[in-house]
Amino acid sequence: MERDIKKLISEMTLEEKAGLCSGQDFWTTKAIERLGIPSIMMTDGPHGLRKQMSSSNVDNLGIFNSVPSTCFPSAVGLASTWDRNLIHEVGVALGKECQAEDVAILLGPGVNIKRSPLCGRNFEYFSEDPYLTSELASSHIDGVQSQGVGTSLKHFAANNQEHRRITSNSVVDERTLREIYLASFENVVKKSQPWTVMCSYNKVNGVYASENKRLLTEILKEEWGHEGFVVSDWGAVNEREAGVEAGLELEMPSSGGVGDRRVIEAVQNGTLSEESLDKAVERYLNVLFKAVDSKKENATYNQDEHHRLARKVSSESIVLLKNETGILPLKKEGAIAVIGAFAQSPRFQGGGSSHVTPTKLDQPIEEIQKLAPQAIITFAEGYKLDSTEIDEALMSEAKMVASEADVAVLFVGLPDSFESEGYDRTHLSIPENHQKLIEAVVEIQKNVVVVLSNGSPIEMPWHDRVSAVLEGYLGGQAFGGGIADVLFGEANPSGKLAETFPLELSHNPSYLNFPGEGDMVEYKEGIFVGYRYYEKKNIQPLFPFGFGLSYTTFEYTDVTLSSDKILDTETVDVHIKVKNTGSIAGKEIIQVYVRDNGDKVIRPEKELKGFAKVDLEPGEEKEITITLDKRSFAYYNLELKDWHVQSGDFDILVGGSSDRIAHVKTVHVDSTTVIRKKAHRNTTLGELMEDPATAAIVQQIMTKMAEQSGIASAMQEEPNDMMLAMMKYMPLRTLVNFSGGGFTEEMMEGLLAQINSTQLMK
Amino acid sequence: MERDIKKLISEMTLEEKAGLCSGQDFWTTKAIERLGIPSIMMTDGPHGLRKQMSSSNVDNLGIFNSVPSTCFPSAVGLASTWDRNLIHEVGVALGKECQAEDVAILLGPGVNIKRSPLCGRNFEYFSEDPYLTSELASSHIDGVQSQGVGTSLKHFAANNQEHRRITSNSVVDERTLREIYLASFENVVKKSQPWTVMCSYNKVNGVYASENKRLLTEILKEEWGHEGFVVSDWGAVNEREAGVEAGLELEMPSSGGVGDRRVIEAVQNGTLSEESLDKAVERYLNVLFKAVDSKKENATYNQDEHHRLARKVSSESIVLLKNETGILPLKKEGAIAVIGAFAQSPRFQGGGSSHVTPTKLDQPIEEIQKLAPQAIITFAEGYKLDSTEIDEALMSEAKMVASEADVAVLFVGLPDSFESEGYDRTHLSIPENHQKLIEAVVEIQKNVVVVLSNGSPIEMPWHDRVSAVLEGYLGGQAFGGGIADVLFGEANPSGKLAETFPLELSHNPSYLNFPGEGDMVEYKEGIFVGYRYYEKKNIQPLFPFGFGLSYTTFEYTDVTLSSDKILDTETVDVHIKVKNTGSIAGKEIIQVYVRDNGDKVIRPEKELKGFAKVDLEPGEEKEITITLDKRSFAYYNLELKDWHVQSGDFDILVGGSSDRIAHVKTVHVDSTTVIRKKAHRNTTLGELMEDPATAAIVQQIMTKMAEQSGIASAMQEEPNDMMLAMMKYMPLRTLVNFSGGGFTEEMMEGLLAQINSTQLMK
Repeated sequence: MERDIKKLISEMTLEEKAGLCSGQDFWTTKAIERLGIPSIMMTDGPHGLRKQMSSSNVDNLGIFNSVPSTCFPSAVGLASTWDRNLIHEVGVALGKECQAEDVAILLGPGVNIKRSPLCGRNFEYFSEDPYLTSELASSHIDGVQSQGVGTSLKHFAANNQEHRRITSNSVVDERTLREIYLASFENVVKKSQPWTVMCSYNKVNGVYASENKRLLTEILKEEWGHEGFVVSDWGAVNEREAGVEAGLELEMPSSGGVGDRRVIEAVQNGTLSEESLDKAVERYLNVLFKAVDSKKENATYNQDEHHRLARKVSSESIVLLKNETGILPLKKEGAIAVIGAFAQSPRFQGGGSSHVTPTKLDQPIEEIQKLAPQAIITFAEGYKLDSTEIDEALMSEAKMVASEADVAVLFVGLPDSFESEGYDRTHLSIPENHQKLIEAVVEIQKNVVVVLSNGSPIEMPWHDRVSAVLEGYLGGQAFGGGIADVLFGEANPSGKLAETFPLELSHNPSYLNFPGEGDMVEYKEGIFVGYRYYEKKNIQPLFPFGFGLSYTTFEYTDVTLSSDKILDTETVDVHIKVKNTGSIAGKEIIQVYVRDNGDKVIRPEKELKGFAKVDLEPGEEKEITITLDKRSFAYYNLELKDWHVQSGDFDILVGGSSDRIAHVKTVHVDSTTVIRKKAHRNTTLGELMEDPATAAIVQQIMTKMAEQSGIASAMQEEPNDMMLAMMKYMPLRTLVNFSGGGFTEEMMEGLLAQINSTQLMK
Repeated sequence: MERDIKKLISEMTLEEKAGLCSGQDFWTTKAIERLGIPSIMMTDGPHGLRKQMSSSNVDNLGIFNSVPSTCFPSAVGLASTWDRNLIHEVGVALGKECQAEDVAILLGPGVNIKRSPLCGRNFEYFSEDPYLTSELASSHIDGVQSQGVGTSLKHFAANNQEHRRITSNSVVDERTLREIYLASFENVVKKSQPWTVMCSYNKVNGVYASENKRLLTEILKEEWGHEGFVVSDWGAVNEREAGVEAGLELEMPSSGGVGDRRVIEAVQNGTLSEESLDKAVERYLNVLFKAVDSKKENATYNQDEHHRLARKVSSESIVLLKNETGILPLKKEGAIAVIGAFAQSPRFQGGGSSHVTPTKLDQPIEEIQKLAPQAIITFAEGYKLDSTEIDEALMSEAKMVASEADVAVLFVGLPDSFESEGYDRTHLSIPENHQKLIEAVVEIQKNVVVVLSNGSPIEMPWHDRVSAVLEGYLGGQAFGGGIADVLFGEANPSGKLAETFPLELSHNPSYLNFPGEGDMVEYKEGIFVGYRYYEKKNIQPLFPFGFGLSYTTFEYTDVTLSSDKILDTETVDVHIKVKNTGSIAGKEIIQVYVRDNGDKVIRPEKELKGFAKVDLEPGEEKEITITLDKRSFAYYNLELKDWHVQSGDFDILVGGSSDRIAHVKTVHVDSTTVIRKKAHRNTTLGELMEDPATAAIVQQIMTKMAEQSGIASAMQEEPNDMMLAMMKYMPLRTLVNFSGGGFTEEMMEGLLAQINSTQLMK
């Protein structure tokens, strides 16, 4: 429906306009009935709806009940699928549930980068890699929004910890912001236009995200072209009027009139222009009416269908980390001991605002029994769900059950209290009763399969002593079915890690500066986040980024490039042939990394720039093509304030994991942007020698000086490494002193003027 | 002699004053005969004099010959002795040689911190630890200056690489500067008052050291009380008049009149005040006349005596890194194969301005023969000195010689071309021909002793395959004798590493940001330099800081503290009993580290705060006392702009190496400085709850809110971890929104006024 929104705004009172800039209550916006402006509802997400029973309940903490909805695997699990299509399907399902529940905007997905495995909210985020994050978040958003339901890309920006999250100040250098922490948002905004973006609680380089004009207006709206509006994280507003000016259109939840009053006063006393307020209202109304127009009346969805989808996603998100002696898949016969309280009461989602009430909940033990009716399945609790202490009786029972079986499947991981929105972990251990359970069982049973439920990496000091490890993450309401499918080979595991598992916490790149001192957290590791760090530092992780096993094997039979030399305005296609060389069907995640072979810019060993997931029957071979463009080769250049390719050779690395590169091809990329620098008194002779235009001038000076000065003649006669290095690093001004009068300050000034007027140095 | 220097200055012309602010030529200052102001000479140091044959030769590069002087071990070797008295003796010897050669000021020592093992000039520096560096440099200076000869503490400051050293900008945060890079200068200036301090070439946080008023005046002269003058590193002056204003009194070498002219013009046009110039001249003349008054006529020194001292220092600086099966000391009998060109032509000093012409030079092979006349000593060259390529003939000969002996002693390391002033290394490998020689010899001889000559750490991929490793560093002219003494047990090795040897280069803390990009080098590892990094990150080094073996064994029999609770204005004595539990005499270096057990401030695992070297006969026990003061427990607090002790428990760790702590005692230190903070709208409830004075107020508000709002009542009824964490991190302002009107903005402002007027928060 066409509306004249500008006209509508012109009919509003100042109070009405200010009123639209904050919510009605916890979950809905304000209506203005006389102007036909309705209220819409938002609910937490992003892996399921958390629509609270009563929207007037002042609670965003998950304490009060919410209506049932399908609980899909958390983002960490979605990410492990590396499957754009599957995540799109999840998005579509979520969109349908929103329509059925009259929810206009789903508050997700979260694309913050996993700077530290300790961050309590990591389970809600995708990856340590911005490219992987942005690709998968785009699919999620495209899916949801295809159903006429909006999303809220969150938490913008540099919000990578829960510790002191409302007052902490993330100090991040510009290049790191651009390449890592903003990059995960940038491509999503450009590709998928989320209806809303949610600003985070924290400060970024000293300014609250909620009143950060540089982030909310200059970068998000102007540079990236975001068309929707920005909503505050719940309670993130510091000074409301500053937020309106900065580009924060909607404060949530209601501030009980405080925000409205401050906006009105600011307009009245002239510290906030009415134009700024009008612009905010206009952006807000554009989305509001899009929501209104997209509303499907009497929408419903099929809970069973969504549960089946949840099961499929769950099985695809599971990562097979270890499978010695091919213990997996399990045979559907013999005696199988299933041990651990998680097998009865799975940990399938994280705590906090994303906590949903599932429509139904699979029990792993039941699903295992269903899939293997011929087997003798025994169960032992092993540990108490609500305690970390060792329960000797349960431990004895577990050992007995394990000793009598052919194989023991242990369900362990992190209990709810260990990770949640609101606080960070301080270590990477699982509870003592889980750990000791593993150690006790491996003593008496040599066939041990460990199934993990956790939202973020853990240390595994026991991993050498077990036969198989399945990382189940937080697998959603159908995790029980999903893990049963994988255990028995009904599904061939195809997940790969979207994050590095370090051998120990201290190896993590942020370790020296996490969670900071007081309210200040400095991102001193810079761009070296996740695998970018472990690879550059050559620190062996427990499991590397991109890693995951399968029940079959794949061979990368061929890799070719469409060209071995391109301009940065062109693209290059990487053609990759992959073959299933095993005896069962399976899916492989093909990863394409790029390495800058130059040495002028500090860069990671390699960076993920493309990926694809292919389904292959035994013996089948497929060719896929991944296209790389300028951004695949570029770094963020601070002088240009733009992405830039340093001309030179780049390796294209193709493989099934960051540490299993099968083929390397090289392409030469030439930049079409020439950076020219002004020469000055501290420009070095080496820099002048690099450019043919200025090299000749330097040579002249040196020859002239050689005639007059000992040092220069010594250099010409008997150059050694030290002298050559010294000369290369000498700034022009030192020649004035060392020339013995042959090269004066005046001559230097003249020379600089000449260089800078005719042609700047490259 | 008493002089009225102010009066002298008042009699000078502007030209004369400006003239005194730069040198006459390369090594001498300007005289003003009419006023009785003489010229003095400076020469490079610091482990020997490099007085050039002709002072008018425009050459500071070591190309032209210098007069013979005793070449002591380089600073890296001196540091490995950890022996204040011995280094003082070296200083005295150097002072005597200066007097004999009419040198007024010796240009050293260098106290830059070893940020990266790649720095080409590391051999001239002491350590990666500022405390150890400053203690040893003080001894050196005290020794030299006791002879009426000045020193020049260099290179001030943050000059930790040779790469682009004249134009590079060291970007270092304030706390890191204070705790690491300035700390190595600070204590030396305060304790030993070097006559001069030499400013470095580079920029520090954007400003050239040579015109950095904050460094040269505010910190060096005003804060630390330096009484001497600042001299530029040779050619470090950028804009001379800015240097005078900043506190750089003397430009060296002569700028051919350029600097003088700029100073004169600046005074004439008013951009530089004549008072500033007068002050510079006054500081300069104070030192000049001190030099004049200290001059000893007809001074001489005994070359043989100094050579014997050099031999003693050399043997004490050698670090025994490995000694399996007690292969060392060697027996003075049987067949000993000595292999490697370094055994004939030792590498005994580094390249660059510190390169001296020795009075004599020991050959290791000769000294070995002299000490073991009964043994059959054979020799093979093994590799060519001037090549890194494998010489098959030499290799074959070496293998044959090795195979026929009972033990092979291999002399290998870094050739001159690998490390020098002027450029940095790019890897930590020894040349291929050295490496392959070791690998070939271990194949046919199981008793292999490797003797290393190098100025900075190397990687040792072969170290598991040899029986013993002796780190000889750059051992000076008597290294041949010193190493022979250690090999045969004439001297019991007692050196310990003053730096960490990493397993591989990439593990070094500066690796991600060394040597920077273009002219910018960011010290992003912060205070985590050397062992402070390896320990915190739990990255296993090849050999840790403080490590070194002996031919005997020591036991730390007892450690007691004079008190277990002190104020930061008091000191605590650490009494340590050490016993020689072996059968031969030896020296032990006792190390005392301090660990802050609190968690409020980001700190290293532990830091060196005291050390002593004791000489013990077999079975002998001695007690030593090390006194710790405020600085031993303090970190640099940015708010206070001062050193501060965070009240709490501190561990005192005592042992013979950073990784071999024998005893840990705990002392509680209470700060006498209370930091009070102003409360504001973003002060968290957690912060308010910590202080009893404000906790009560918060409790009141919460109770009041509980009556009115769902969230607060839910919190009080059913608190869980997430809610408690959220509350703790909530800033005061969020209560306004969540209180449902019970706590207004106005009430908050009132509350803040009340808190801040009565008592600021602790």
